[in-house]
Amino acid sequence: MHEHFRDLSADMTHSFLGRNIVSARDFTREEILFVLDVAERFENRHLALLPGRILATLFYEPSTRTRLSFEAAMQRLGGSCLGFADKGVSSVAKGESLSDTIRVVEAYCDVVVIRHPLEGSARVAAEATPKPVINGGDGANQHPTQTMLDLYTIRKEKDRIDGLKVGFLGDLKYGRAVHSLVETLCHFDVNLTLISPESLRLPEAMLESLRQKDIPYREAVEILPAAADLDVLYTTRIQKERFPDLLDYERVKNVYQLNRKLLEGVGPDLTIMHPLPRVTEISTDLDDYPRAAYFRQAANGVTVRQAILALVLGGIA
Amino acid sequence: MHEHFRDLSADMTHSFLGRNIVSARDFTREEILFVLDVAERFENRHLALLPGRILATLFYEPSTRTRLSFEAAMQRLGGSCLGFADKGVSSVAKGESLSDTIRVVEAYCDVVVIRHPLEGSARVAAEATPKPVINGGDGANQHPTQTMLDLYTIRKEKDRIDGLKVGFLGDLKYGRAVHSLVETLCHFDVNLTLISPESLRLPEAMLESLRQKDIPYREAVEILPAAADLDVLYTTRIQKERFPDLLDYERVKNVYQLNRKLLEGVGPDLTIMHPLPRVTEISTDLDDYPRAAYFRQAANGVTVRQAILALVLGGIA
Amino acid sequence: MHEHFRDLSADMTHSFLGRNIVSARDFTREEILFVLDVAERFENRHLALLPGRILATLFYEPSTRTRLSFEAAMQRLGGSCLGFADKGVSSVAKGESLSDTIRVVEAYCDVVVIRHPLEGSARVAAEATPKPVINGGDGANQHPTQTMLDLYTIRKEKDRIDGLKVGFLGDLKYGRAVHSLVETLCHFDVNLTLISPESLRLPEAMLESLRQKDIPYREAVEILPAAADLDVLYTTRIQKERFPDLLDYERVKNVYQLNRKLLEGVGPDLTIMHPLPRVTEISTDLDDYPRAAYFRQAANGVTVRQAILALVLGGIA
Repeated sequence: MHEHFRDLSADMTHSFLGRNIVSARDFTREEILFVLDVAERFENRHLALLPGRILATLFYEPSTRTRLSFEAAMQRLGGSCLGFADKGVSSVAKGESLSDTIRVVEAYCDVVVIRHPLEGSARVAAEATPKPVINGGDGANQHPTQTMLDLYTIRKEKDRIDGLKVGFLGDLKYGRAVHSLVETLCHFDVNLTLISPESLRLPEAMLESLRQKDIPYREAVEILPAAADLDVLYTTRIQKERFPDLLDYERVKNVYQLNRKLLEGVGPDLTIMHPLPRVTEISTDLDDYPRAAYFRQAANGVTVRQAILALVLGGIA
Repeated sequence: MHEHFRDLSADMTHSFLGRNIVSARDFTREEILFVLDVAERFENRHLALLPGRILATLFYEPSTRTRLSFEAAMQRLGGSCLGFADKGVSSVAKGESLSDTIRVVEAYCDVVVIRHPLEGSARVAAEATPKPVINGGDGANQHPTQTMLDLYTIRKEKDRIDGLKVGFLGDLKYGRAVHSLVETLCHFDVNLTLISPESLRLPEAMLESLRQKDIPYREAVEILPAAADLDVLYTTRIQKERFPDLLDYERVKNVYQLNRKLLEGVGPDLTIMHPLPRVTEISTDLDDYPRAAYFRQAANGVTVRQAILALVLGGIA
Repeated sequence: MHEHFRDLSADMTHSFLGRNIVSARDFTREEILFVLDVAERFENRHLALLPGRILATLFYEPSTRTRLSFEAAMQRLGGSCLGFADKGVSSVAKGESLSDTIRVVEAYCDVVVIRHPLEGSARVAAEATPKPVINGGDGANQHPTQTMLDLYTIRKEKDRIDGLKVGFLGDLKYGRAVHSLVETLCHFDVNLTLISPESLRLPEAMLESLRQKDIPYREAVEILPAAADLDVLYTTRIQKERFPDLLDYERVKNVYQLNRKLLEGVGPDLTIMHPLPRVTEISTDLDDYPRAAYFRQAANGVTVRQAILALVLGGIA
């Protein structure tokens, strides 16, 4: 084991070698906490663990955050990157299948990050190659490194995950980040508050799953008083295109905006998170609020992705 | 000479320093075999021969394979890359000539790879700068590193080139890869079989050239029995847009599909190659056929391009 | 101080650490000359001063020259790059503000170069982050590293700036590079000649400023005899879209073309500069004229940007 990681479990480290990171569902509580522990070691530390290794970023949909943070993570580890930022420059136009593209690209790199609009595409990619594939978002389905950086942020901001009261605000029906984080929080002893307009409630199947796992939750339509006693409030963008009636959207958009005034009604410890980009759902007057964690959350994306890249490529072993 | 290359010809090595790689026609049999010999030394070996050197990839047309494999090759050699993946982000829109772009970009890099839709454009680029220019495909004309990786694949799969019976299947009229490989195979003692629909036969000028060079060849319309006794079958994509009548395309498309069933009629040593991307012309049921070499062929692209970059930049001297 | 820079002012070096490079107006004569002095040290010298450091290139408008020369500069310094080459792959489409993008991207890098069509955008970006931001062009406003490389080129070609007779030719009304260079030359003892069609004269406010600063200037419509006794002639592209009447454009386009024949009427020491890309305003028959400095000028862009990146990131301290 590398000196900075010597006290960590060698078995656990070994279990990540060459592993695909396709869905947060594929990881146990113990494994997730291990990733967070590894990530912590990268805070404020420059460790060139992957010199000469190559990351391929195959982005069939645009993304600033995910693509650039993976590239930053790889470069900080001493590795390099190649790939494409939109499908226009790929071979898709020539009719090539995703599996074929992966089988070709595997020869150019040591690890692949893929973002693709089709649900299940990352799994298809992972099955096409023996090299590790990391899902950078497959449509409405999964984005596991987002979930891990969200959990990392919660733990870093609050020093724990167990025992927290976590709220979700906004579009709980369609939001991929929300679904995956809610599911993964079920590994922990948390209490959930789900705040959304009636039409954007968390899907019934997910509520049923919470009940089966004995995760206490309550639902609310108004932010206050529901958010008043929370430890964390995870906010999401409400997308205009989800509303058949634009008037409904306009009403909801204004009601679900977090701002200084509204936060006067909550405790001083409420941490505000958001996967970004935000539009109007968090007022910029909150940006210098000490518990506004969303930019730190984005920064944690690099740290967590350094951990994941180092793990799947054997950099800390 | 670098230790891993010490037994190779220093004169030959020197002759590649700063050289343009514009057309496969510019290389003798001896030179081509030398490139293949150098490439072999990169197999399973990490040699950072070009630290601090910069490759500019100027792609006026999209390409996954060629661009990414050149970038992978450069990065494996310890160098880095810059450039553009489509002409939209270049200065073409402002009316700049190709020569001007090259004369500017030469200051940013040590070697240029260019893909451009216009025939002859790579030669124009090479003449504009003293730095080495590598043709990554200039329209229907040349793509010399494709030809070299095709030859490398043939030699690696069959342990020789001389004495082989090589078949070509599909669009022999328009295929740039086919034309260049056929021409280059004329340096060797080969026997050619040309299988295509009547409307997509190898151009008469090329057939005439084969006769002049005493290269034995035969033409066929049906895959069997023509392919039965071949050592290598080089398959190509038949492009719909080549057919004035779509019905003709549909008929041909189905007749020229390689699959397991069809391969029951050939010997067990027939190696299947394809420059990729493939669409329907090779069934995926062939992908785990041991002699299906097309994904290995794509991987060889990195190895051969490592050799070429190292040679033109003096990395092995 | 690094050994190659030990004789330079440590105070001046320190003053550049973490500094934003937003406008040429922000720099004194002494500071500009210091940048040129630092740049000189990078000529023909490979100094990997920034290993492990990351440059983010955020290009909301396409650019070959600026983006690639910054990337070349960073890579020659041993650093690496990430970013986007056009806004299509950024989060702009999702409605994210520029400030938010910068606050996210600052976590991925050590320094940002931004090109954005909106005037003032680089200042907005600089204010959003504590990391240094370099303006790579904000609409018609500023492009400070272009001005610095122009000055570097003048000094390198003529061994001085003070005492020179500098002419500007072409579109003096809209040209960002011209405005910034004229302004910055006001720090020096120069004599200006402004040659343009009546409709594209230098704006009156700038002429007034020249008078206030006692910079001698004269205006002319014809190239000769105005250019006959100049030391430097800075030519610019005249853009068709500036003319309401296309006939006016065609007339001007032909009158303002520099070529060999026309240069017979000037002294042998007249240095020709151009920010490139050029279209028809400089005939290619001038390209091998010894005093045609425009391609050397483009190459100087890398040298000057190496100096700036090394300075703001503390690489020479």
